[in-house]
Amino acid sequence: MAQKKPWGGRFRKKTSKLVEEFTASIHFDRRLYPYDTEGSIAHCRMLARQKLITREEARLIVGGLKAIRKEIDEGRFLFTPALEDIHMHIEKALVDRIGPAGEKLHTARSRNDQVVTDTRLYLRDKIQDILGHIKKLQQSLLRLARRYSDVIMPGYTHLQRAQPVLLAHHLLAYYEMMKRDRERLTECLKRVDVLPLGSAALAGTGLPIDRQYVAKLLKFSSLSANSIDAVSDRDFIIEFMADCSVLIMHLSRFSEELVLWSSREFSFIEIGEAFCTGSSIMPQKKNPDIPELVRGKAGRIFGHLVSLLTVLKGLPLAYNRDLQEDKESLFDTVDTIIPVLTVYSAMLGQIEVKLEKVNEALQEGFLTATDLADYLVLRKVPFREAHAIVGQVVRYCLDKGCELTDLPLDELKKFSDKIETDVFEYISMKKSVDSRVSTGGTARKLVLAALEAAEKELK
Amino acid sequence: MAQKKPWGGRFRKKTSKLVEEFTASIHFDRRLYPYDTEGSIAHCRMLARQKLITREEARLIVGGLKAIRKEIDEGRFLFTPALEDIHMHIEKALVDRIGPAGEKLHTARSRNDQVVTDTRLYLRDKIQDILGHIKKLQQSLLRLARRYSDVIMPGYTHLQRAQPVLLAHHLLAYYEMMKRDRERLTECLKRVDVLPLGSAALAGTGLPIDRQYVAKLLKFSSLSANSIDAVSDRDFIIEFMADCSVLIMHLSRFSEELVLWSSREFSFIEIGEAFCTGSSIMPQKKNPDIPELVRGKAGRIFGHLVSLLTVLKGLPLAYNRDLQEDKESLFDTVDTIIPVLTVYSAMLGQIEVKLEKVNEALQEGFLTATDLADYLVLRKVPFREAHAIVGQVVRYCLDKGCELTDLPLDELKKFSDKIETDVFEYISMKKSVDSRVSTGGTARKLVLAALEAAEKELK
Amino acid sequence: MAQKKPWGGRFRKKTSKLVEEFTASIHFDRRLYPYDTEGSIAHCRMLARQKLITREEARLIVGGLKAIRKEIDEGRFLFTPALEDIHMHIEKALVDRIGPAGEKLHTARSRNDQVVTDTRLYLRDKIQDILGHIKKLQQSLLRLARRYSDVIMPGYTHLQRAQPVLLAHHLLAYYEMMKRDRERLTECLKRVDVLPLGSAALAGTGLPIDRQYVAKLLKFSSLSANSIDAVSDRDFIIEFMADCSVLIMHLSRFSEELVLWSSREFSFIEIGEAFCTGSSIMPQKKNPDIPELVRGKAGRIFGHLVSLLTVLKGLPLAYNRDLQEDKESLFDTVDTIIPVLTVYSAMLGQIEVKLEKVNEALQEGFLTATDLADYLVLRKVPFREAHAIVGQVVRYCLDKGCELTDLPLDELKKFSDKIETDVFEYISMKKSVDSRVSTGGTARKLVLAALEAAEKELK
Amino acid sequence: MAQKKPWGGRFRKKTSKLVEEFTASIHFDRRLYPYDTEGSIAHCRMLARQKLITREEARLIVGGLKAIRKEIDEGRFLFTPALEDIHMHIEKALVDRIGPAGEKLHTARSRNDQVVTDTRLYLRDKIQDILGHIKKLQQSLLRLARRYSDVIMPGYTHLQRAQPVLLAHHLLAYYEMMKRDRERLTECLKRVDVLPLGSAALAGTGLPIDRQYVAKLLKFSSLSANSIDAVSDRDFIIEFMADCSVLIMHLSRFSEELVLWSSREFSFIEIGEAFCTGSSIMPQKKNPDIPELVRGKAGRIFGHLVSLLTVLKGLPLAYNRDLQEDKESLFDTVDTIIPVLTVYSAMLGQIEVKLEKVNEALQEGFLTATDLADYLVLRKVPFREAHAIVGQVVRYCLDKGCELTDLPLDELKKFSDKIETDVFEYISMKKSVDSRVSTGGTARKLVLAALEAAEKELK
Repeated sequence: MAQKKPWGGRFRKKTSKLVEEFTASIHFDRRLYPYDTEGSIAHCRMLARQKLITREEARLIVGGLKAIRKEIDEGRFLFTPALEDIHMHIEKALVDRIGPAGEKLHTARSRNDQVVTDTRLYLRDKIQDILGHIKKLQQSLLRLARRYSDVIMPGYTHLQRAQPVLLAHHLLAYYEMMKRDRERLTECLKRVDVLPLGSAALAGTGLPIDRQYVAKLLKFSSLSANSIDAVSDRDFIIEFMADCSVLIMHLSRFSEELVLWSSREFSFIEIGEAFCTGSSIMPQKKNPDIPELVRGKAGRIFGHLVSLLTVLKGLPLAYNRDLQEDKESLFDTVDTIIPVLTVYSAMLGQIEVKLEKVNEALQEGFLTATDLADYLVLRKVPFREAHAIVGQVVRYCLDKGCELTDLPLDELKKFSDKIETDVFEYISMKKSVDSRVSTGGTARKLVLAALEAAEKELK
Repeated sequence: MAQKKPWGGRFRKKTSKLVEEFTASIHFDRRLYPYDTEGSIAHCRMLARQKLITREEARLIVGGLKAIRKEIDEGRFLFTPALEDIHMHIEKALVDRIGPAGEKLHTARSRNDQVVTDTRLYLRDKIQDILGHIKKLQQSLLRLARRYSDVIMPGYTHLQRAQPVLLAHHLLAYYEMMKRDRERLTECLKRVDVLPLGSAALAGTGLPIDRQYVAKLLKFSSLSANSIDAVSDRDFIIEFMADCSVLIMHLSRFSEELVLWSSREFSFIEIGEAFCTGSSIMPQKKNPDIPELVRGKAGRIFGHLVSLLTVLKGLPLAYNRDLQEDKESLFDTVDTIIPVLTVYSAMLGQIEVKLEKVNEALQEGFLTATDLADYLVLRKVPFREAHAIVGQVVRYCLDKGCELTDLPLDELKKFSDKIETDVFEYISMKKSVDSRVSTGGTARKLVLAALEAAEKELK
Repeated sequence: MAQKKPWGGRFRKKTSKLVEEFTASIHFDRRLYPYDTEGSIAHCRMLARQKLITREEARLIVGGLKAIRKEIDEGRFLFTPALEDIHMHIEKALVDRIGPAGEKLHTARSRNDQVVTDTRLYLRDKIQDILGHIKKLQQSLLRLARRYSDVIMPGYTHLQRAQPVLLAHHLLAYYEMMKRDRERLTECLKRVDVLPLGSAALAGTGLPIDRQYVAKLLKFSSLSANSIDAVSDRDFIIEFMADCSVLIMHLSRFSEELVLWSSREFSFIEIGEAFCTGSSIMPQKKNPDIPELVRGKAGRIFGHLVSLLTVLKGLPLAYNRDLQEDKESLFDTVDTIIPVLTVYSAMLGQIEVKLEKVNEALQEGFLTATDLADYLVLRKVPFREAHAIVGQVVRYCLDKGCELTDLPLDELKKFSDKIETDVFEYISMKKSVDSRVSTGGTARKLVLAALEAAEKELK
Repeated sequence: MAQKKPWGGRFRKKTSKLVEEFTASIHFDRRLYPYDTEGSIAHCRMLARQKLITREEARLIVGGLKAIRKEIDEGRFLFTPALEDIHMHIEKALVDRIGPAGEKLHTARSRNDQVVTDTRLYLRDKIQDILGHIKKLQQSLLRLARRYSDVIMPGYTHLQRAQPVLLAHHLLAYYEMMKRDRERLTECLKRVDVLPLGSAALAGTGLPIDRQYVAKLLKFSSLSANSIDAVSDRDFIIEFMADCSVLIMHLSRFSEELVLWSSREFSFIEIGEAFCTGSSIMPQKKNPDIPELVRGKAGRIFGHLVSLLTVLKGLPLAYNRDLQEDKESLFDTVDTIIPVLTVYSAMLGQIEVKLEKVNEALQEGFLTATDLADYLVLRKVPFREAHAIVGQVVRYCLDKGCELTDLPLDELKKFSDKIETDVFEYISMKKSVDSRVSTGGTARKLVLAALEAAEKELK
């Protein structure tokens, strides 16, 4: 009975059902089947080329694998915990289908190098997808920025109104973050795109294989350089998870802002009804569920990162079964991030900026106090002194319950005789924004140029 | 169209399909259906008792809910993302089945209090299960300890042989850990066992409900004291995850030891073939997969803990959609820990201790060097001096390539004239173990007493 | 040279300076000195009572330890990495001071049980402190709630206005959270309050010690039951960190709200100037630094929890040097949480609620839409239908740009003929709040009772 | 009084002492002083060049800053919580020293862009250091590999003996990991090396500054492109921490192996006495403290990563005080990783491989069972069948208590008549190793080539 396991030669006792179920990975690694068959086909072609199997055997194997893949595609394949994982399922089905030739497929390889090859093929695919989705999200962002390119809003620090900025400038901050996200993921991709197959169990193989040829067939850019490292290494998954953690952290910040801006108190935006839901009890509710969920999903991805770091901590070389725990968290990271990017991109197209409310918000909060200080600096007041003077003006306004622009010139002059009538233009919102021409600043001309450059970049 | 959503009154636009899929929780929260129907039945009985609905309506509702539950039990129920979650599915099915009476069920409650009631019912159940499983594991541990109750093995610190201890004493260390685990989970259970239903959206309800009666029907020990807290609180899940993190950390330590002891180098134990698996490439392999996987699964649960802490960090009151992210990590924690406990308990029954190898290991490593120092202390040598003397003896043995007991008395006496012929008995393994009678020590009589006490405790 | 290390007997080579510095813990564990001397004094008294040392030796040792403690108290003690840790420093100083008697202190103990005894003494102290600080914070919370006990504010879900609640009710939600925090920490304390001393290296000792007596001197409630567990167990620290994680998570939520409420957009509160800081560049800024920092510090404590779980994952028994990594994160957790609690408590005393603004916020957002639905329910409209009707009323108001209470009766009646003139009272803020008399609800009389009960509880 | 704070203009009340202490960062950010003065000098030179200050003022400021830096270097500078942070300390000292000119230094900048400039300067420095330290560690690794380049040891999977490998090959696996670590850190460095100064509070400045010139003075490769992003972005720190997490994860794996190999059971290596410590109670102990501590320190760095991700999660733009929490965890990551790399590198030079023990370990465990299967494959037995045959041979040996090479040819032939006398050479350790010539395999000639290539790479 025990012999039925492809590895069961030395075993006398049958594996416990409990153990079969506990150790099985087929319920989650089955999704690797396109990559597993693809990898096996390449491996088989190489074996034939190297005369480790005959042309005819190769033909049978490739045909069998394609048929199995089709069966799985169409949902006609039967999975069972007793066969542990996707590799054993496919090999068993192959032998059932084509006989002894199938028993030759696993020549010169081990599940240790096979599984990590599958995972790299999978992740290479998915990172490319994700890069595309980030790009689309950036495009949605740019469309939104373009649509409201002349809107001035309060910029915040400490959630206190700070200085006027262009909404487009604020949105472009997220563009920059995602640009870095794409950069990081592109670099990660380079380290994913390495073929481990041919490392066998851990030491390489004594059979005359040709790894370079397999890499060519599978379009891998390079070969792993050390067989022990190749089967033990999960850096590429951790790096991917760390990159996704930063990416979703960015989106959690954006989400926090969208939630704030959707609140009655801010009322800066309205998210389209099709992108909100209501309450089962409160008839008036319209909730910004998407950004809330995205904010929450940050936790999920951080958790996966912690999980895999923990798995690897203190693990001796080479392969250990603990490593099986890498896949579910990887899959869930991918399955989380792609819909997040997709729905976010769609949602951005459904955002209306409530111009009147945004404009109203500019009227309170002394947003151009810094401009007044800078005005004094240009009139040779040392900055620290200028700051103190304006602080007193603000204090005075607070006591009177007015804004800077409400003070007549003679009242302003009491604080500093450097203040002249041109001050009023200087501390207007529009002037404030347009004055900020330092590289990366919020001046309209800079922001429009940045917007254009970004649009070009994405083409 | 939009009106079809039970909360859709104020909405004009239909929810985007993308959003329906993104926000849907039905694919994971469906498993709450037994708790959801149980909670609804209790809620409905209370509504009738309070005359908020008629007896007849209540009869219809309860009948409908039972029928729906049966349908789900039997796999005949249809789920769809458009209906979001298990609560909406069941309410919709109820209205379809019994008409307008079904529309009264949601009186005086919100999904906010409903979902957390379901979750508490679920977790109360599961903690009780888990407590039972820990107990079973402790019993397996005790059986193993009992079976090898006279085996002496090297105790380790820094993975260096330190002092001889009873294997049973070593195993009882894990018994103690699990005892604390049960203690913590029992205390957590107390905080899970609190009824939030009746808190409605966040403020309580103006309808004349009777929360005490619902609590009685659902066997909750107490009522939540503040409605805003009740719908926002997820402490009980975090606490549960923290307790499970410590529990699986304990098992990861035990697993590390089982892996070590199964290595050819230690060879202290043999895990039964039914609890090991082989290699697809190396015919001689027999691997301790269970403890390896369990060690790896520690990462998984730590990850979930981090995930939920992150979700809650900085979240304003009361309910926010982010909280929907609590359930998958909770479910996976439960689904991970229960099989881990089950398979572990079974595996312990399949462990053979290789007495000869354990005994061999006692022969090297100067395990009774501390006893020799204590021997000198009892002869009035200050401990620190005694330690230095024995250090020199060890050094001398290392140079000669022998053990303490290989030195004749006259050689020993060169290091201290306090050493007499009785020293040899004093530094024998058996004597060393039996001498350690300080409370909690490894002396056989203490360990047997501890074993017996533990066995009694579990009855 | 090497012999100078108290453990150096078997060593020939001197410890590398690099290693001394790398492994030294004296720069952080020095703060354990009061606990270390206290523990040593108790240990020494027991040794004398058990005749393992003489009365005179004990007198010398106790005197020496007290003198050393005083020296450290007064900053006159010299620390050096070469002596590794606080235990070695004190022992060395003792021997220098009183000679050979000092060499007897370490009889029947190991640093393994000593360090964990010190840590437990320390943490027992600190948890008691923390419990006191939480209590004080709760008192500040109650004072604030009492001061504004008749203020109605908008309750939120999804950061959207939901239903009117009493501010005091909202604040009492945090009271409940902290009540659970105290409960958890009190239970944790029970597991901290266990004496490990006497477990020696890992196996107990063969010398005739009396652990019970030491426990009595050090006021420990119980003795550790298994010596191997005793020296390896760090559960009590992880549990403490998990409890602190939940505690600071609560405060991070409160902080998020204080930051929101301090924003110009909400303007619900004003935090006193003495508790805010300004900007180096923007003269008008007044920032809510305290809640921001507290929100940020959540990350710090979560990080420590992850850190220690990682350290313990997969560690074999008994003591391993990895465990030295427990202390800095423990100390920092304590050093973070105590000032957070202290400053928070003080800050709450400096919060002014801006009544006018809060009241203004009640006027918009259809906060009593649920009350209108409940009104219909009491007139026998099924809840789900009532919800849909009110949804349409809200929709109608949104289109008109008005609130529920702005609609005349005849317009309301168009939506349902069950609506009568008494509806206006029913949907007033005050009535809405006062109607919510379900246990835990926001009705004034319930909230006042809860407030009173809480005040009593803290006395 | 309040006016004394440089931002205190609008404040009437004095900052609470409690708040000063709670918000102060001077106790940890003081270490940024060399970067802060360097940044300020560059800023000041630019201000002069742009005529925002006079040449003479610039001369005074630069002189003042240099003097202050020297004062701090020499420990003569006084720090106080009341001055909050290093920026305020230095500005205040400057004004005290040179008068009104000092009040001009903060022109056109904010602490928001200043602090992140300092942090980037600091981290740019430290990453370069760390890259150097990794390189040194790789060199130590190569020296060790070179020294034992002909040692064959058992390779492991699941901590079970698997196949013979060269020790050098095993060590080179770590070389590969560190190569990736350097790659990642080098890419991270690129994203660190970006100048944010000139972004001012969040919007840029209206004063005519020249950011490009400052970048040139401070040798930054590029300018931040968006001022809001520039002051809010902490990606570069998270990325650095993620890279360090992977790096120390690698070292934790290596450490686990060194601890195992140092155990009496493995006895593969001896770590020099100068790199071990002993026990305060057990005179025979020599413990591998360094690898244990390094393994433990993985938790520390993972914790910091979690900490900062948590801090940033859900934070709205732009600067919030929460961000102050970035520095201590960054500093501790650097302060942890550098000594770890240094001590590790030194320790590797003190490792002796115990050749006899390693060789002994090769004799048991059927390490060439796979070779026997490959032998059959080359004789046209399908691999899966060959695997089963060898499984039975192993089973047979286990029952007899012998190894593969102990079986005479005729006994072997009973399992397969394809086995001939040349089998014995084929399944020798040396032959097994040398046969593995697949790229990345453990064959001596490949490993020597890899070693040479690595040595060249590091030059």
